[in-house]
Amino acid sequence: MHAEIIAVGSELVSGQKLDTNSQWLSLKLGDLGIPTHFHTTLGDDLDENIEAFRVAKSRAGLVIVTGGLGPTQDDLTREALARSADQALVEDAQALAAIEAFFARRNRTMTPRNRVQALQPEGAEPIANPVGTAPGIWMKTGGTIFACLPGVPSEMKVMFDGEVVPRLKAANLVGRVIVHRVINLFGKGESDIEAEALELTARGRLPEVGITASDATISFRISSQGANEEEARLGCEATADLIYDRFGDLIVGEGSEDVAHGLVSRLRSLGLTLAVAESCTGGLVAERLTRIPGVSDVFQGGVVSYANTVKIASLGVPADLLERFGAVSPQVAEAMARGVQERLRADLGISITGIAGPGGGSPEKPVGLVYIGLATRGGVQSRKLELGPEQPREIIRSRAAKHAMNFARLHLSR
Amino acid sequence: MHAEIIAVGSELVSGQKLDTNSQWLSLKLGDLGIPTHFHTTLGDDLDENIEAFRVAKSRAGLVIVTGGLGPTQDDLTREALARSADQALVEDAQALAAIEAFFARRNRTMTPRNRVQALQPEGAEPIANPVGTAPGIWMKTGGTIFACLPGVPSEMKVMFDGEVVPRLKAANLVGRVIVHRVINLFGKGESDIEAEALELTARGRLPEVGITASDATISFRISSQGANEEEARLGCEATADLIYDRFGDLIVGEGSEDVAHGLVSRLRSLGLTLAVAESCTGGLVAERLTRIPGVSDVFQGGVVSYANTVKIASLGVPADLLERFGAVSPQVAEAMARGVQERLRADLGISITGIAGPGGGSPEKPVGLVYIGLATRGGVQSRKLELGPEQPREIIRSRAAKHAMNFARLHLSR
Repeated sequence: MHAEIIAVGSELVSGQKLDTNSQWLSLKLGDLGIPTHFHTTLGDDLDENIEAFRVAKSRAGLVIVTGGLGPTQDDLTREALARSADQALVEDAQALAAIEAFFARRNRTMTPRNRVQALQPEGAEPIANPVGTAPGIWMKTGGTIFACLPGVPSEMKVMFDGEVVPRLKAANLVGRVIVHRVINLFGKGESDIEAEALELTARGRLPEVGITASDATISFRISSQGANEEEARLGCEATADLIYDRFGDLIVGEGSEDVAHGLVSRLRSLGLTLAVAESCTGGLVAERLTRIPGVSDVFQGGVVSYANTVKIASLGVPADLLERFGAVSPQVAEAMARGVQERLRADLGISITGIAGPGGGSPEKPVGLVYIGLATRGGVQSRKLELGPEQPREIIRSRAAKHAMNFARLHLSR
Repeated sequence: MHAEIIAVGSELVSGQKLDTNSQWLSLKLGDLGIPTHFHTTLGDDLDENIEAFRVAKSRAGLVIVTGGLGPTQDDLTREALARSADQALVEDAQALAAIEAFFARRNRTMTPRNRVQALQPEGAEPIANPVGTAPGIWMKTGGTIFACLPGVPSEMKVMFDGEVVPRLKAANLVGRVIVHRVINLFGKGESDIEAEALELTARGRLPEVGITASDATISFRISSQGANEEEARLGCEATADLIYDRFGDLIVGEGSEDVAHGLVSRLRSLGLTLAVAESCTGGLVAERLTRIPGVSDVFQGGVVSYANTVKIASLGVPADLLERFGAVSPQVAEAMARGVQERLRADLGISITGIAGPGGGSPEKPVGLVYIGLATRGGVQSRKLELGPEQPREIIRSRAAKHAMNFARLHLSR
């Protein structure tokens, strides 16, 4: 038993819009133990749709179709499905009632056009849509099940989780459940981390462990199977414990958590506050920290000291330090960190000064040279980063921001 | 004449990785006047690949395949193409020489495995790969042309532009060239702007004008055809002029330029400097401005005043103002703007204070209530924004940042 996913829409096949529904559905089906063998994307052409449905029926036991269920003449999924199955299109009373109820709830008048959305191939049943007007279609034809859903991702996802998954389970099509757990690390390169985890990522090991890198954050992805979610979840645990034991301080969080979350959780557990002084990152550290709701309990604020006059006036960096060593120097990084810690009355101050490029580099101070500083009650220190010179501005800024946050995070975990 | 694009890779069809090659290729083909009718994605299975190639051959005049050209056993495109065309696989001397030269240039030893990358179906010709080991394949079979390229986007794109496009032109398959010009507006809703441009976006108008919205920036996309690029580009001009005349100050830039670029270009042309004071946006305005290389000529820096103590100490906001009106008030927004303008010695100061949520709202001051302030040599003013309460934190922050930058931009265009 395997699946094909068909995405219908001229805007998709022409490239105007990127289809992300098919990827989402493949991951979901995979977690239900149903592998996807084909994705097909095509435009709003009736003959091509009929033919694509026939091809899918010949090679897959489950076909999920997204798109083509709206009220306009371009919406052809209903008719194409009926024709490919040699069935008539009939008005479904249950689907019509659901559409009428949707308009009534919103005090809107239902247009005659919306009535076509209640059409279904004979022998099909409607799939309820709690968030839009288009009902879906569930239909068995030949040996293949078709589940047709709207193309709007927010509607499609709600209907897949709430309506399609229970039907797949009831039809005994769901295999073993797969659960993923993602553990994120920062501070070492992907190949170094991989070298320390060869037996974890070996082919054939169970649970399976993958390793990926994104913006210098390295993630272990544990995938564990089980007869149910609880069992699959338990299957991840020993491997996760092993990763925590082995990589300890490198671990910044799980799921979507990155270095900023790791730093904020350390600050919270120690009851400490932070302030940041940023030059080349221009507010990126502050922005990443304040994406986290409720961060005001540990984050005082920051100074973006792009101009030297701001470093002097708002951070108290001595002018002669700037003259003698230049803005991009360990001395200025330390003075910035101390300045922001004192002036913003925080327990910790972190700072970043560097050359993000593409201009502004020199042989002594090339693009990518960055100093990060950290001021604590116990003292002030700095570190040199070499992030260029061939990297683009955005990468240098992002890496510098993450390293600065990680510098403080590691200090707090000692 | 239309095209099908086939993406080969188990990591794509399983959802582990999102295929963006097919979208890129559809847009490129569209610009060459070749419409794409199908995208197919499938895994590394020989029989399924042979069958998919046969299906594509039956329904498309041009088939672009990405992926499956590497040296491993999972790489099946060479063999699947040969079998679907009933041709033998033979070692191509030109392809082998190119692979050997690639390794020699990098002083690396070529492994025996890489030799399989020189295999091609009989009658095919290799497509040179200037940036990797895998040569592509160009082959005419039946009435259909196959162009097989590596799946690595950076290799695929270079080879498509440099090798496939010239072959398509030589084969007289390229239709009229299409050029796009994108003009970005901010400050009005999509439906309002659309209502003022109905004759532009009408179906059948030439050049075609589309309208899209992304993060509250509204874009007109003009698509003009011509016998060559110059002619197509000229075809956009009258429509672009019309949009500039009609929407004037709403226009912030073209292409990837957004509100930040519009503000920076006004500051540059007037020779003025800016400083920003941010509360709920937490550095987002500063971060967006400093993405622009060389912005230090007009951007002094900023203060992220998350805590009230920072508003007092670093911006000079009077404590009694905070007590009487609260941090989220027009009075505090104006004091922040004036404070940052004076303390950071800038010509203009802008400020943002609000409730980004999800917590922190009240009936009087709900989530999404934001005040933006603007201090100039001539005075200080503020504006109230209501961006919630149902919007997520990230949307409220992004909208607030853009409105604040736009407030200053519009002031400078008077």
